[in-house]
Amino acid sequence: MSEIIEPIANMASELNRLPGIGKKTAQRLAYFVASMPLEDVRSLAVALWEGRKAIRFCETCGNYAASDTCAICGDPARHNGQICVVRDPRDVAAMERMHEYTGLYHVLHGTLSPMDGIGPDQIRIKELLSRLETEPVEEVILATNPDVEGEATASYLARLLKPMGVRCTRIAHGVPVGGDLEYTDEVTLQKALEGRREIG
Amino acid sequence: MSEIIEPIANMASELNRLPGIGKKTAQRLAYFVASMPLEDVRSLAVALWEGRKAIRFCETCGNYAASDTCAICGDPARHNGQICVVRDPRDVAAMERMHEYTGLYHVLHGTLSPMDGIGPDQIRIKELLSRLETEPVEEVILATNPDVEGEATASYLARLLKPMGVRCTRIAHGVPVGGDLEYTDEVTLQKALEGRREIG
Repeated sequence: MSEIIEPIANMASELNRLPGIGKKTAQRLAYFVASMPLEDVRSLAVALWEGRKAIRFCETCGNYAASDTCAICGDPARHNGQICVVRDPRDVAAMERMHEYTGLYHVLHGTLSPMDGIGPDQIRIKELLSRLETEPVEEVILATNPDVEGEATASYLARLLKPMGVRCTRIAHGVPVGGDLEYTDEVTLQKALEGRREIG
Repeated sequence: MSEIIEPIANMASELNRLPGIGKKTAQRLAYFVASMPLEDVRSLAVALWEGRKAIRFCETCGNYAASDTCAICGDPARHNGQICVVRDPRDVAAMERMHEYTGLYHVLHGTLSPMDGIGPDQIRIKELLSRLETEPVEEVILATNPDVEGEATASYLARLLKPMGVRCTRIAHGVPVGGDLEYTDEVTLQKALEGRREIG
């Protein structure tokens, strides 16, 4: 009879669905939640449920938004000549942490993956094209992930957009800062070499 | 404007209160929850809240229970001559994972800690004494943690219970299985030596 009582087992199995929360961690967290004051558990549950319900997507760029337009698209100080194309709202957050980029974004909500049945119509490419017609875009920065799908999506978009006369750029591949040449894979090293620049 | 939208920030700050979930992990989890289907978030929130509400404590031993009596106290196959005294319901779960112990438990819900104002009346010692009067207990196994409070609590209980004619034992201290003598602290080594047994 070493069973875990049902409410704790339920909590654990739900927590186990979150990324990076394995079975053991989920169980430990469930035991912790079981020992939390009722009020604290309520505010956790409410934050998750109400928070998820409150999530909207920006009608322009597809980023998370609290209303119809996200904070970035709604900020007149952002440079509207640049659109940085990313896969997920999480990527917007990563770019913004840099405190460097002042342009706008376009979130595709996916990358091309024919094997999974994700073609150009399944991600927000149409929406990008219509922005190019109405917004004064000078440059589209293709910042999809440096993996197979991300590269394929970037190439596809470059081929699609260049004939429209818009400048397309791709974020650089190279050795990560703080990384170690010895442990860098050959493809990355090759890209780093190709992308070398004059210094000094 | 690198701000995280409020619902996601709320989720992150609530998740950040869980043990082992730092600020960064909480933010990553919040972004994940934001991208989960609404139904999945609902079942997570419901599992936490309804689960926490459903938690009861066994009226006999103080372990987590789904009704008035926990699964262990309610199991007639458990040996009622032994009571293993632990601090938390989590410790019961740890003992049960061993699949070895067949007696009952008594959860103190704390250990003596005069510095924090926790004396004998603040933990479930009275309840243990009344069980000794009504149940056919032959042995009380003191399995509080091998730390200062746990040791103090075990000594206190041993002094209290022995005059009542009940056998008190303390779980062994020693080198953890799979551990390494070289990295074992001196106090543990000393206890391991004191607790040595004849073999072969």
